[in-house]
Amino acid sequence: MTILSRVLSRVDQDLDNSISRLFDLLRIKSISTDPAFSGECRKAADWLAAALQEIGFDASVRDTSGHPMVVAHTPLSDQEKAESRKPVPRVLFYGHYDVQPVDPLDLWDRPPFEPEIVTAKDGTRRIFARGASDDKGQLMTFVEACRAFREVTGALPLSVSILFEGEEESGSPSLVPFLKQNADELKTDMALVCDTGMWDEKTPALTTMLRGLLAEEITIFGPDRDLHSGGYGGAAQNPIHVLTRILAGLRDADGRITLPGFYDGVIELPADVIREWEKLGASDEKFLGEVGLKYPAGERGFSALQLIWTRPTCEINGISGGYEGDGFKTVLPARASAKLSFRLVGHQDPLAIREALRKYVTDHLPADCRVEFVSHGASPAVFLPLQSEALKKARAALTEEWETPAVLIGCGGSIPVVGDFKTILGMDSLLAGFALESDNIHSPNEKYDVTSFHKGIRSWVRILAALSGA
Amino acid sequence: MTILSRVLSRVDQDLDNSISRLFDLLRIKSISTDPAFSGECRKAADWLAAALQEIGFDASVRDTSGHPMVVAHTPLSDQEKAESRKPVPRVLFYGHYDVQPVDPLDLWDRPPFEPEIVTAKDGTRRIFARGASDDKGQLMTFVEACRAFREVTGALPLSVSILFEGEEESGSPSLVPFLKQNADELKTDMALVCDTGMWDEKTPALTTMLRGLLAEEITIFGPDRDLHSGGYGGAAQNPIHVLTRILAGLRDADGRITLPGFYDGVIELPADVIREWEKLGASDEKFLGEVGLKYPAGERGFSALQLIWTRPTCEINGISGGYEGDGFKTVLPARASAKLSFRLVGHQDPLAIREALRKYVTDHLPADCRVEFVSHGASPAVFLPLQSEALKKARAALTEEWETPAVLIGCGGSIPVVGDFKTILGMDSLLAGFALESDNIHSPNEKYDVTSFHKGIRSWVRILAALSGA
Repeated sequence: MTILSRVLSRVDQDLDNSISRLFDLLRIKSISTDPAFSGECRKAADWLAAALQEIGFDASVRDTSGHPMVVAHTPLSDQEKAESRKPVPRVLFYGHYDVQPVDPLDLWDRPPFEPEIVTAKDGTRRIFARGASDDKGQLMTFVEACRAFREVTGALPLSVSILFEGEEESGSPSLVPFLKQNADELKTDMALVCDTGMWDEKTPALTTMLRGLLAEEITIFGPDRDLHSGGYGGAAQNPIHVLTRILAGLRDADGRITLPGFYDGVIELPADVIREWEKLGASDEKFLGEVGLKYPAGERGFSALQLIWTRPTCEINGISGGYEGDGFKTVLPARASAKLSFRLVGHQDPLAIREALRKYVTDHLPADCRVEFVSHGASPAVFLPLQSEALKKARAALTEEWETPAVLIGCGGSIPVVGDFKTILGMDSLLAGFALESDNIHSPNEKYDVTSFHKGIRSWVRILAALSGA
Repeated sequence: MTILSRVLSRVDQDLDNSISRLFDLLRIKSISTDPAFSGECRKAADWLAAALQEIGFDASVRDTSGHPMVVAHTPLSDQEKAESRKPVPRVLFYGHYDVQPVDPLDLWDRPPFEPEIVTAKDGTRRIFARGASDDKGQLMTFVEACRAFREVTGALPLSVSILFEGEEESGSPSLVPFLKQNADELKTDMALVCDTGMWDEKTPALTTMLRGLLAEEITIFGPDRDLHSGGYGGAAQNPIHVLTRILAGLRDADGRITLPGFYDGVIELPADVIREWEKLGASDEKFLGEVGLKYPAGERGFSALQLIWTRPTCEINGISGGYEGDGFKTVLPARASAKLSFRLVGHQDPLAIREALRKYVTDHLPADCRVEFVSHGASPAVFLPLQSEALKKARAALTEEWETPAVLIGCGGSIPVVGDFKTILGMDSLLAGFALESDNIHSPNEKYDVTSFHKGIRSWVRILAALSGA
């Protein structure tokens, strides 16, 4: 029996314990965007550091000005053991322990922080909890893979460092400073990131193209207090009206963003890539049908997949103003605000687009109104080299585990850390993940299939073995 | 000493007790729009019925399908006494005991339901509480005037009926059915309504022109669940985006409402009326400066006063969708909604405009979206006859009390009951009130000056005496 097959076998035997450990982590309410849950975020960091120490890592919780980081390294003895064999890449694994807020809570079928396995009629077992998929379930696939290696062989097959962040869902304000301050400690030959998905339930995927993100909050101020619309309506500026007019003006009738210079740096997709993706068998009807829709919105002339993987966009993620309770209140409010995000592709410059947005809003403000902006992050899009040895090895490992050829895909979401690793640490990243479209991440009833978790652990075992040349 | 001067003198002597009774009513949290406060609304109705019984009225609380009405009449003996003297008008006084919600609570300087008198540096004494002005303070001026008459003379000088409503701030759903069911009981020669304001602190006013109101709630639905904007942004319809575009399209660049037929029935104001109002000395700077603004918004070419008294408008009173908490969430929400109100003038038809609005919204819905509408009331504008004897008598009475000529003004707000009295009971209304622009009605820190309350009671004593010919 090879080392690899012994480690995989250990993963299978220990699955129930692996799930039980994941449940412990899922019970921690580590919502990073809401200051009320700071203590829970620290608790999650502490829990992870302890779990990593238990399996032999030198692990510590590191304070930041926001939620803490967890940093871990294989101990020197292990590293020496590995290096004495032959030169193998040193890797840095990244994941995030923070989760999205859970509202609207009434749409959850069970409490979001009480994880539970539910078996569907077809026998599929699913873990339901906030963070089950994004990203606690995913990061634990790697931790459990390391555990299996250590328990079978007493060491990891290559030198592994780990970085767990607690602010991914809230713009990662501490990440860049932390990477800069600890560059020597964190720089390795490549990063491994587990925050992406499968192509479908059977087809594993490596993500090589990610959209960037610019997130802004805009608040428009008008009268110095809330007014009665009978007493002032028609004569006083209404900040909600101003806001809706400004937001509506951001897209033209063809769904293109109107900000000057917005499309600078956008790369048109080569025809052969489009053809390869067409072979994946995604149709707009199928893709959008899963969420009750039929027709691609946004820019005309693109399929849903092209829109999401390769086109920039502007979404309004939240809007608020005036009376929002039951019934009616004839108020003319003093302020109104919106949260906007731009998904970016190619070489679009997030900071230039932020400037263009702020100028557009300011230029369209009527007299008597003022605006305040809050930045919630800005990161460029990322392209990963398609020809690297590591990518080929990982692709082969995934293909073997899932018995289906692994595909190279894009991703509509942003994983800013991938860009930061490149810019600050000079590292490319390998993005493998086991989430499914149906996981309801960022929504009520988030879940992670037990198969995703189990074969995810096995996939990392194979990838680590492949990268180490074992 | 005439009867009038004895009654006025009694008002002065009893002021502290009058204020104490008003405070009892202000402590009741009768927010009609929020079902959580139904019990408090009934409590306010019970309190008023008891107060009216105490001063000799036949008063009762009448159930409706919503919050109850309070109906009271002077007892038959009093009526006969009055009628034996000479023919005098029978009057129906109207007020409402319900109040607006109190959010945002953190902007209040003191708890909204713990009334308190605060003396300003210049000696002005102000009663602070939700409802202090709108409409508990105002309706109590009439109740206390009746009390003074009864205590001094043993009876009222004319036949008085009273109707207090508990749903004025939530669209008055029970009012029309109640007026229809009790038309014989409630029909008198004229209505008296105390829900309007002074021109300024020194100048009393009778309101003869009121805007109507159409209130609608619009909810746009898109995907069947909240989505991650990374996974779907650019390909899935975003209901917030659809809503903002639809709302922005309701007004053109000149501030005119774009709904077809919207301006049908609008009456252009005669030049002499405009001149009379210009004499009042209101400037845009002064009027808007009180709320931190400078320039009239809305339709170009009108002064702020003209816009509010004589022009129709469309206001967004509330908007809501997606993530509205602290921080950021990259959600693409399943729904978004807005509360809209249209202020109407002249002969504009609220139901026709509601149809036009619903058609406009439906016509502008993209594929994959649907809309739901909720009506929160529809009432036409009201004009009152400027040449009636009652209006002349009331104007003289107010002029005498305030030692400043009373003016005839318009009102930007709607008082739907005035239209309903005309339509259902065939009665015109006399609208006298003592509120000031600075009263912060519908806003945090609502107040009513002690002078408004005191001279308001005295004003009603004089008006009742004048109408009775005493």
